[in-house]
Amino acid sequence: MNLIPAGKPALSGRLRATYLIETRYPLEVAAAAMAGEQSSGTFRAIPGETPELLRRFGARVEFISDVAEVDSEALPFSRSPKNATVRPRRAKVGLSWNIENTGTVLASVWSTVLGNLFELHHFSAMRLLDLTFPDAFADAYPGPAFAVEGTRRLTSVEGRPLIGTIVKPSVGLSPQETAALADTLIAAGLDFIKDDELMGDPPHSPFEHRFEAVMAVIDRHADRTGRKVMYAANISGDIDAMRRQLDLIERRGGTCAMLVLNSVGLSAVIEMRRHSAVALHGHRAGWGLFSRSPDLGMSYLAYQKFWRLAGIDHMHVNGLSNKFCEPDESVMASAHGCLTPMFERAGRPDTVMPVFSSGQSAVQAAETYTRLGSDDFIYCCGGGIMAHPGGPAAGVRSLHDAFEAAAAGIPARDYAATHPELEAALQAFG
Amino acid sequence: MNLIPAGKPALSGRLRATYLIETRYPLEVAAAAMAGEQSSGTFRAIPGETPELLRRFGARVEFISDVAEVDSEALPFSRSPKNATVRPRRAKVGLSWNIENTGTVLASVWSTVLGNLFELHHFSAMRLLDLTFPDAFADAYPGPAFAVEGTRRLTSVEGRPLIGTIVKPSVGLSPQETAALADTLIAAGLDFIKDDELMGDPPHSPFEHRFEAVMAVIDRHADRTGRKVMYAANISGDIDAMRRQLDLIERRGGTCAMLVLNSVGLSAVIEMRRHSAVALHGHRAGWGLFSRSPDLGMSYLAYQKFWRLAGIDHMHVNGLSNKFCEPDESVMASAHGCLTPMFERAGRPDTVMPVFSSGQSAVQAAETYTRLGSDDFIYCCGGGIMAHPGGPAAGVRSLHDAFEAAAAGIPARDYAATHPELEAALQAFG
Repeated sequence: MNLIPAGKPALSGRLRATYLIETRYPLEVAAAAMAGEQSSGTFRAIPGETPELLRRFGARVEFISDVAEVDSEALPFSRSPKNATVRPRRAKVGLSWNIENTGTVLASVWSTVLGNLFELHHFSAMRLLDLTFPDAFADAYPGPAFAVEGTRRLTSVEGRPLIGTIVKPSVGLSPQETAALADTLIAAGLDFIKDDELMGDPPHSPFEHRFEAVMAVIDRHADRTGRKVMYAANISGDIDAMRRQLDLIERRGGTCAMLVLNSVGLSAVIEMRRHSAVALHGHRAGWGLFSRSPDLGMSYLAYQKFWRLAGIDHMHVNGLSNKFCEPDESVMASAHGCLTPMFERAGRPDTVMPVFSSGQSAVQAAETYTRLGSDDFIYCCGGGIMAHPGGPAAGVRSLHDAFEAAAAGIPARDYAATHPELEAALQAFG
Repeated sequence: MNLIPAGKPALSGRLRATYLIETRYPLEVAAAAMAGEQSSGTFRAIPGETPELLRRFGARVEFISDVAEVDSEALPFSRSPKNATVRPRRAKVGLSWNIENTGTVLASVWSTVLGNLFELHHFSAMRLLDLTFPDAFADAYPGPAFAVEGTRRLTSVEGRPLIGTIVKPSVGLSPQETAALADTLIAAGLDFIKDDELMGDPPHSPFEHRFEAVMAVIDRHADRTGRKVMYAANISGDIDAMRRQLDLIERRGGTCAMLVLNSVGLSAVIEMRRHSAVALHGHRAGWGLFSRSPDLGMSYLAYQKFWRLAGIDHMHVNGLSNKFCEPDESVMASAHGCLTPMFERAGRPDTVMPVFSSGQSAVQAAETYTRLGSDDFIYCCGGGIMAHPGGPAAGVRSLHDAFEAAAAGIPARDYAATHPELEAALQAFG
């Protein structure tokens, strides 16, 4: 047997990551501990760790940028160097890895840039701020198949954001009740509807029954309007079941499937992208685990890059003045991240369409549009449509009005003077 | 088409979860917000949310147990009720869900018990403490195929813990170098070896070459000893590649595959269990994301139940006096959790074998054994074997000595008087 690796193309380039850290160790020592743990090293030098191996496979500390001294540790259980009298210090640290360490395997990258780092005793804060993939990953993974352009094509929506909603109550409706609600929402003029992330394949609403019932409604309206509403049906579950559900969606003329990214995981999403003929809508439920502490986890900027490479077309980013606890600046940074290309290569778009939701209505529409500097997004409203004083159709109309005003640079309040649905929305939800 | 759900057996039972929370809201209001967000409700009552639907599908607040008032918020960005003057309060909250909400889909359970909870603005701390699955999940998922009994059978080790190690350096060794190191380690008397979690399928050590090279060494020693060392080869990657690698492991007579659980995700692990004929070794790299903040995330007690149901046979739990920042009590609670049955049913064991590692040597062996109250575990040492003053074989001997002493109730120091390898280990690593 030939044990010499052969037949694989040579890879080049480095994976680059930036972290926020907090430590009582000298910054150089702390950064070296990160680099060692996540590449060739361990805590102490070991026999096979030759200088040549370290040079080729050791993670490199690219920069250390001092931020500030702080009064006390943000996270517990860190340790101090012996006889340390200094206070904890915050810094940004840049690390890079030879792509030879991971090959172009996304799961290996996840292990490498996250992995054991959060448990190292040197640190009382550890957060991945950003991540840059070398070009070889653009060859290894297909990225989004539809993204902005494909989603516009599938929905026949041009020159404005897509307006959507989430079927509520989250759980409990039968397939027939879901279809009846979808009928009301689609009749109101929506472009996009989705299952709640809690609605999967339960006995009271089996996926295939719900999907068939909703698609019958969508088709009926498409016959009337010439436009097919996109339905992001939640397929999240075991691999075989997801594949069967994707097949049903394709066979039945659906255009989208939803995946709860953190619940099914990275390798499952990659597999669904390979199997899917429809757009993949990425829900981030559980994202708070990564983001809720500013001293731990990872930025959305880094997070969304994994799922984009895996092939997700739409990514949830929360919304301005949302009902959760994310500040507006964070929401907009996430959305901008989604629309920023990952690779500097022509020909294949790799951006992903941001999805705004959570307490949204015509009230935040103009600001969302203006701050994003683009109409390439999906804007999901629940109460902002269903609870509009003039009914759901007036709710949808108020959103069109709001985006028209924003596109024309006219303040919403002024535009509302001649657009009663917008006026009513601003009064009801403002 | 018949839209009436049929053909699925009726499900009964409730999913039960306990959380630690911190809030300025009245505890009842806060608990109701959790229950509403993660079941039928939204932040405000909506049309389809009938009393009957709420009764059947609404999450139930089972108990609220006040813990203490605290000085200030643990996590930022929470909001207070209007005119609130109270300080934040900590409590334990028990929620339960009708299994009809999720069916027996593990990914749906993940979305339900974690999901948006961490982002709710009511809370400045949110941590899942424990989780109990109804019996229907034991029917829906196969659980571990090997666990303790099967692992003992595959390795021919009875009446003592398995002694193992991790091939280091983590990355950089060629297949031939890895095999040479495996030769040294197996000659020293080990039961178990594993890849580092950073070593997957990179160009300098393609999985198939590495696996073949190491198996040749394992077979040669098995011919001599009659015992086949278990090699947990890291297959973590894309689904197709993992399946191919599992096939190779089975075809070539391997007995184990390693999965980096957080990197590949839940649905991928479930799929690998269905495909695998060998034991599945679960690495928890990235676990710090869930655990490092005491105010966020989830306990290992809850975490390991997902992977056990998915079918993992071995779960990493860190080790006593480890080189990371996890306290010893936490390590032992994790290990005890792994060996505690999930379902009260005879016939099929559903426990998972805990794996101790990180800075381990003969020094912690007796305490690990005694505190666990069992020898059903894998004990992985790196330096504790390779850096033993008498060489790797003496390192392995020192561990056998330590466990023999512990089993006989003899203090290690006393036993060391007549066991020089143990004596040397206690001096070198103590």
